[in-house]
Amino acid sequence: MKPLLALAATFLALPALAQDAEKPATEPPTPASVIAAAAPREWIAIAREDLLVMDLAPDTRGKARRVVIQLMPPPFSQPWVANVRTLAAVHWWDGTSVNRVQDNYVTQWGDATEAKPLPAGVTAPRSPYSAELPNPAARNDPADRTPDLSDAYGLGYFAKGFPFAFDPGRMQDPSGRILPQVTAWPVHCHGAVGVGRNVAPDTGTGAELYAIIGQPQRHMDRNLAVVGRVIEGMEHLSALPRGSGELGFYTDEEAALRVPILSVRLGPDMAEPPALEYLDTASESFARYVAVRANRKDAFYTVPAGGVDLCSVPVPVRRSAAAR
Amino acid sequence: MKPLLALAATFLALPALAQDAEKPATEPPTPASVIAAAAPREWIAIAREDLLVMDLAPDTRGKARRVVIQLMPPPFSQPWVANVRTLAAVHWWDGTSVNRVQDNYVTQWGDATEAKPLPAGVTAPRSPYSAELPNPAARNDPADRTPDLSDAYGLGYFAKGFPFAFDPGRMQDPSGRILPQVTAWPVHCHGAVGVGRNVAPDTGTGAELYAIIGQPQRHMDRNLAVVGRVIEGMEHLSALPRGSGELGFYTDEEAALRVPILSVRLGPDMAEPPALEYLDTASESFARYVAVRANRKDAFYTVPAGGVDLCSVPVPVRRSAAAR
Repeated sequence: MKPLLALAATFLALPALAQDAEKPATEPPTPASVIAAAAPREWIAIAREDLLVMDLAPDTRGKARRVVIQLMPPPFSQPWVANVRTLAAVHWWDGTSVNRVQDNYVTQWGDATEAKPLPAGVTAPRSPYSAELPNPAARNDPADRTPDLSDAYGLGYFAKGFPFAFDPGRMQDPSGRILPQVTAWPVHCHGAVGVGRNVAPDTGTGAELYAIIGQPQRHMDRNLAVVGRVIEGMEHLSALPRGSGELGFYTDEEAALRVPILSVRLGPDMAEPPALEYLDTASESFARYVAVRANRKDAFYTVPAGGVDLCSVPVPVRRSAAAR
Repeated sequence: MKPLLALAATFLALPALAQDAEKPATEPPTPASVIAAAAPREWIAIAREDLLVMDLAPDTRGKARRVVIQLMPPPFSQPWVANVRTLAAVHWWDGTSVNRVQDNYVTQWGDATEAKPLPAGVTAPRSPYSAELPNPAARNDPADRTPDLSDAYGLGYFAKGFPFAFDPGRMQDPSGRILPQVTAWPVHCHGAVGVGRNVAPDTGTGAELYAIIGQPQRHMDRNLAVVGRVIEGMEHLSALPRGSGELGFYTDEEAALRVPILSVRLGPDMAEPPALEYLDTASESFARYVAVRANRKDAFYTVPAGGVDLCSVPVPVRRSAAAR
């Protein structure tokens, strides 16, 4: 089989930088220039069904605060995603609030009273946090250039606009045969949206959601359900005043800091849902983007890092052409 | 020689969890419980000479905002640290402001006009961003339990209360002899404080400082000087409104968002400098703390991560006993 180390290093061996034709040799590419040079066919529209749009009350300067979340694609976290869809459809979050902001950890929102009844059928799923994805070592499509990344937590790769980690020890059977699937799971990078829960076996319903606002919290992977990621308006969650209560919850004295949630809607329930697209993670441009992130060679940098971890490669998202 | 992989995995093989005597077997340790159980001798007082204390104007609720920075120890970044000491000694930052807040990147402060004269002798050093540290593979002190961590950026370890990365390819000479020193460098973890600069060969003077407010920015390692880390009051930098100008600078229309800096002082110049101490990174408790961070087994977690990266191990800091 393809040795794991060589597999993990695939992206570093890509001749992507040398092939960079849209810039003169004196201006090495940056992540932004690689994204800007991506072909239109390399962008994938995000279905409006996969958008969750949260409007917070305007800030003290009267500015609107909209947070757009891309929901997790199948086969991951789907029972929780279904709950989230139900809760949005019945406008369950309207009138609830942001209740917890813990520095370098999470912003969490939902019903501060923890007493608001849930819609019928919205219960904590008994479902795994991992699922099967094609084994990157078994990919046969030469057009699929999705790079694999090795970091302190194992191996990772990208699919459907999201980063996933998987167990490198489960890529082959004991006889060395490469297995068609690996067990993979969504990761808690900056911007990941997950499901708050109590102590296991509780898994949470999805009514209490959090976003990772600081450094990645990879120890939460496989322990809590990740249902999406923030793709616009992250600053409306990350720049909120931190709560002084335990775990960053706002205390009763700080009740005025709880930002009211005006509405949370699924894309199809909006008159004008945002039109967004992400850079195909199997595209040539995405592979180059990863390579450039691992080895900055533009004028500002003098020593390339020589590597990059999974969470330091945010999948590029932009407004669709018609909306730009 | 000791194989590198085994070296990197040293902390995982520690019998620390099994030796955990202060908790019953039914309550596995948490990072907090390990810190709480550390012996008094395992804490090292931070010299007041190594403290830089920045008082921002009070927030809109009238609350004081103090940011405490631990300055980088020798042999790292010392010419810039010397500049920072000079600038604080002459009260250069008093009356300047926070001018840039870029989401998931940096908060930066200094003179918004970029015209304020610098004290004599404060110039951009011609100095390397790396320095020599003892090779962890050559340590002879059995009491030194500093764990080494492998991540996407190479190997890392801890010294003097700070995380450092080093090149694993430089631990031995071509004949396999373990070298006494490695070339190491400070890393841009959440909370790291660095020196803003223009395009190289400029290295910055230290008058413009930034703090990493989101995920680690390891691609900046060895490209900018790290002069310390925020050890108290991080939320006063991370929760500020993001600037809408290029790179997150506040625009002229947003001038009111520039938080005034009331004063920046070195510890010895204060009537009552904060009394702080950090957990000795060569201590048994620190090694256990790393092991627990890599493998959470308390009730909330069901699947331990099995690893942890350098920036996900913040060195514990607390108020000294007399100050608590």
